[in-house]
Amino acid sequence: MRGLIFDLDGTLVDTVYAHVFAWQRAFAEAGLAIDGWRIHRRIGMSGGLFARAAARELGHDIDASAAEDLQRRHGELFREFLPERRPLPGAVELLRDLRRRKIAYGIATSGRRPEIDRSLEALGIGGDVVVVERGDVVRAKPEPDLFIACGQRLGVAPSECYVVGDAVWDQLAARRAGILSVGLLSGGYGETELLSAGAYRVYRDPAELLRSLDELGLEA
Amino acid sequence: MRGLIFDLDGTLVDTVYAHVFAWQRAFAEAGLAIDGWRIHRRIGMSGGLFARAAARELGHDIDASAAEDLQRRHGELFREFLPERRPLPGAVELLRDLRRRKIAYGIATSGRRPEIDRSLEALGIGGDVVVVERGDVVRAKPEPDLFIACGQRLGVAPSECYVVGDAVWDQLAARRAGILSVGLLSGGYGETELLSAGAYRVYRDPAELLRSLDELGLEA
Repeated sequence: MRGLIFDLDGTLVDTVYAHVFAWQRAFAEAGLAIDGWRIHRRIGMSGGLFARAAARELGHDIDASAAEDLQRRHGELFREFLPERRPLPGAVELLRDLRRRKIAYGIATSGRRPEIDRSLEALGIGGDVVVVERGDVVRAKPEPDLFIACGQRLGVAPSECYVVGDAVWDQLAARRAGILSVGLLSGGYGETELLSAGAYRVYRDPAELLRSLDELGLEA
Repeated sequence: MRGLIFDLDGTLVDTVYAHVFAWQRAFAEAGLAIDGWRIHRRIGMSGGLFARAAARELGHDIDASAAEDLQRRHGELFREFLPERRPLPGAVELLRDLRRRKIAYGIATSGRRPEIDRSLEALGIGGDVVVVERGDVVRAKPEPDLFIACGQRLGVAPSECYVVGDAVWDQLAARRAGILSVGLLSGGYGETELLSAGAYRVYRDPAELLRSLDELGLEA
């Protein structure tokens, strides 16, 4: 195995709970009360898809422009609630170790620039790292496009790499792409939820993944 | 079976994600960065126990006064982030149905007055309902004291009632008390986590529990 394709929020940076709470407030302001746990279980999908799916679950069919308003307000609240971005334990060291060992890696996220820029910066990810974001593909997770595009840009075949992600959507999208996936508990899903969605292995956070790289048979 | 003993946060009111995020900010302000998912998985323990256990996990042994400061700041942020309290779907209807059918029920929460007052009010819980809170017992969940005290005040034996809670700590404390427990997904734990901790049944939220009361053999 030659490479790792990382999700960003909840996988490398500790942002999931701020995202959940920002979505919850944005929906509440729009008069759409939605349970926190239902938001949490949808995080990792593209924001547009998320907003429309969540509203539909509440029995409201909102149009693209209302979904965009919700997304914009979510972004504002998110930046207000969490001005800084904190890498999850071991995330920076893991990427450094992969670089040193010349194992290919990239980022494939449902987030968008410029919203994700501070997270990339906090992780020390510069312009030399492959980053595929929402704007680069037509369809976001759980569609496989982000992972397929990232693998192609890394020059690594689906059979030669893993996806690493905290959400059920990462595992499902990876399966659609024909890529094995590693689940992390750092986004707040339960272990069995990730395994049921097809995770090949589950670790607690990037620190445990770093200590366990040997189990995955990675080499340059 | 003659009664139900309810947890409050995440079980009857949609407050878990606001609690997680308020704890995360309170810890961050104190220079103690702690992962959101680790906080989430401790919610439902008593606040004092939680603050000390979380700090210890970070390698900081904080004293009782520092734990109290964290708790106070958490309370401030929580009220700022979530001025209103929203009952979870079906919660108000469920309690109304139990009242109508004269099935005994009470609340047993690790929260404290006056912090919980607004949640009780939002649920329409008045002075006639048995409410056992953190201040009424020496030890909070995962110790069984809250559930035992609530059962005694309801006049219902452990073998005659269920605990209903969203957290692993509810299921564990219920087992210690010799009471069967029902898990709800509305606090954001995974189904298997609740079953592994001993839940007898798991439902999505109070609305599904209400539709499923027949499965539990409850009568006045």
